[in-house]
Amino acid sequence: MRALVGRIYGCVDKSDPRPLVPLASGDPTPFGCFRTAPAAEEAVTAAVASGQHNGYPSATGVTEACSAVARYLSQYLPYELSTGDVVLTAGCNHGIEIMMAPGANVLLPRPGYPLYEARASLSRLEFQHYNLLPEKGWEVDIQGVEALANANTVAMVVVNPNNPSGAVYSYQHLAKIAETARKLGIMVISDEVYEHFVFGSKPFVPMGVFGEIAPVVTLGGISKRWMVPGWKLGWIALTDPMGILRRKKVSPCLVNIRHACALLFHLIYSMYLMIFKELISQIYRNVMNVMRETAEICYQKLKDIEGITCPHKPEGSMFVMVKLEMPCFDGIYDDINFCCNLAKEESVVISPGSGLGMKNWLRITFAVDPLLLEDGLERLKTFCLRHGNKSIMNQAS
Amino acid sequence: MRALVGRIYGCVDKSDPRPLVPLASGDPTPFGCFRTAPAAEEAVTAAVASGQHNGYPSATGVTEACSAVARYLSQYLPYELSTGDVVLTAGCNHGIEIMMAPGANVLLPRPGYPLYEARASLSRLEFQHYNLLPEKGWEVDIQGVEALANANTVAMVVVNPNNPSGAVYSYQHLAKIAETARKLGIMVISDEVYEHFVFGSKPFVPMGVFGEIAPVVTLGGISKRWMVPGWKLGWIALTDPMGILRRKKVSPCLVNIRHACALLFHLIYSMYLMIFKELISQIYRNVMNVMRETAEICYQKLKDIEGITCPHKPEGSMFVMVKLEMPCFDGIYDDINFCCNLAKEESVVISPGSGLGMKNWLRITFAVDPLLLEDGLERLKTFCLRHGNKSIMNQAS
Ligand SMILES: Cc1ncc(COP(=O)(O)O)c(C=O)c1O
Ligand SMILES: Cc1ncc(COP(=O)(O)O)c(C=O)c1O
Repeated sequence: MRALVGRIYGCVDKSDPRPLVPLASGDPTPFGCFRTAPAAEEAVTAAVASGQHNGYPSATGVTEACSAVARYLSQYLPYELSTGDVVLTAGCNHGIEIMMAPGANVLLPRPGYPLYEARASLSRLEFQHYNLLPEKGWEVDIQGVEALANANTVAMVVVNPNNPSGAVYSYQHLAKIAETARKLGIMVISDEVYEHFVFGSKPFVPMGVFGEIAPVVTLGGISKRWMVPGWKLGWIALTDPMGILRRKKVSPCLVNIRHACALLFHLIYSMYLMIFKELISQIYRNVMNVMRETAEICYQKLKDIEGITCPHKPEGSMFVMVKLEMPCFDGIYDDINFCCNLAKEESVVISPGSGLGMKNWLRITFAVDPLLLEDGLERLKTFCLRHGNKSIMNQAS
Repeated sequence: MRALVGRIYGCVDKSDPRPLVPLASGDPTPFGCFRTAPAAEEAVTAAVASGQHNGYPSATGVTEACSAVARYLSQYLPYELSTGDVVLTAGCNHGIEIMMAPGANVLLPRPGYPLYEARASLSRLEFQHYNLLPEKGWEVDIQGVEALANANTVAMVVVNPNNPSGAVYSYQHLAKIAETARKLGIMVISDEVYEHFVFGSKPFVPMGVFGEIAPVVTLGGISKRWMVPGWKLGWIALTDPMGILRRKKVSPCLVNIRHACALLFHLIYSMYLMIFKELISQIYRNVMNVMRETAEICYQKLKDIEGITCPHKPEGSMFVMVKLEMPCFDGIYDDINFCCNLAKEESVVISPGSGLGMKNWLRITFAVDPLLLEDGLERLKTFCLRHGNKSIMNQAS
């Protein structure tokens, strides 16, 4: 995916005087309206200036940070997580790397987040894809999951709120996923890096709520909610109140995780302690309001473009998936070709769905300054008009 | 090793009014005389305050940091390293984790740094031990290496300046190691986390100097020289001017390393740029003067203790290895027992050699405030006198 997006960037015409509109990757931090709370930045500054964080972290420092995360997550759960249920990681990606370890077989969503496949391949972990269903608001294809699972399957990965579709799963759907996992005797690895990053009608429900039904390993971090992906503060949390994982030893991949936090910049331990404070929550609410606005702009503008269909309005995360109706275009033969030409002619960069196993789809981010986003989508529309298949267009009108 | 040291800490009598003297692990940062340069701390503070480092790092940022490291290392090499020869890691330990990947067989030093064995075991990488020779200033047992290597051997690990022995290898000895690697068709993985951390008569020579003889993978970082182990800034550098690794594809374990830097706290990229400046070098020289002093105190005090022999005066790193002459002690049956009793009676914590495969040896750090160090070694002496074997002592005098 990264290589593919790099290729699209390579197509941009550097002589175009208009600003480049980056709608491929989800990093809102360059935009003033998405800057994190001053209090968060000040806390890091104070931690450095104290000179107390230059050495190896003390065991107490690590424990305190773990228990801050446990307390934070427990607020949203019917159980109390303990310090021992939490492992600190260098961002959520690090959690993914740790969990995609050898020795088993896992089920991954399609479309998904490509790091899962990349890491599983590297460590020779077997994986298979189940589908997310666009016509059902990108819900998990439960029957597909049941059909795929075999004796070696130990886990299914669920991303909620969902990248790349922008879907937020309902309580009922998550309960169904948990029941399926119980039936299959597997655990759920729930990627909740976008936890609470919702702005539609559905609330965010952590998968851990269903930990009594099936064991849940939650991957999370502060990257998205607090808009500091560069800080690399993540966690792995086990919600397994029935002690199934412990008893079954289902999870060879968990052996190694205690060690993970040894890779963290020491001063960020203190960040785990302060990051969850109310002060910052205020900023978070403001940001969700802007995200709701940009998601709305995105959806409305896209609806208006001939040749592009959006099966589901985004309710969370920073992304939406849209389908290219290929017969509507002249001289464009697939999603990659579409994105290359768009970059070249309009300086708008979008991820081709092919990078996510979804040929002739696009993944668009709306975590962009509202004015720039409108500008970019306007250019997308112009592009689609210019390359529209004249005979089909005429039929339609 | 960590568990073993934890056990020794558990023996300390909490009611002892004297300060605990921590001579087990090498973290000088709690001591005022070893604090890093204000300029280094200020650079981090400024980086945070800029708000420019909250997002995912740009490709340019990563490249600039890699090339800063390449320039820094090239100063001490007969070749110019390029940006592509450097991978950024979360401290040197992260580099070790990456290099101890599956698929081959490596030769490790004994005594050594236990993370090598731990990581190799985790990833089912085969390893064998070659000896360091105390009677030869802890040099590598070259004949031993030659005898151990087999068709599957891809690398030997060398730690220089050496933890745990405090040895610094001469140009001639390093050349011999390189020749041996060439003969065996293997690479040298050179752990130089203590690069330039020398205060004896021998200068530090990077293994990369011999990259034309055999390919060298250098593991390094700023943890030791700049006294900021908690910052986790490390690197892997390839010195392979003949392109042997590239041609042979000797190194399945290198496949993965490009990805490594994705785990780093973004703001530390800017640290790589500033950390090598002259201003900080001044602090480094002051610190080396203190280290020379503490190493000297340590050696002189130890020489004076009956029952302990120190085969080699430390010239680098933060450690020295000493041998317990067991017959000299009454009622103490091995190094672990020695350390437990010492902790209990004198609140002095030392690492038993058993954790490094060296039964009845001790590893002592001198990266401690000079006054505290003298106090601790005085207590060690008292302890040895108290537990001395009377008949032997009398014979000797
Ligand atoms: C589904 C998903 N998981 C994990 C991550 C990575 O999170 P982090 O930046 O904390 O490593 C992302 C980032 O985009 C993501 O979309
Ligand atoms: C030989 C050796 N390698 C690596 C390390 C770890 O370095 P870092 O703190 O940069 O991870 C140490 C630390 O003591 C060491 O002694």
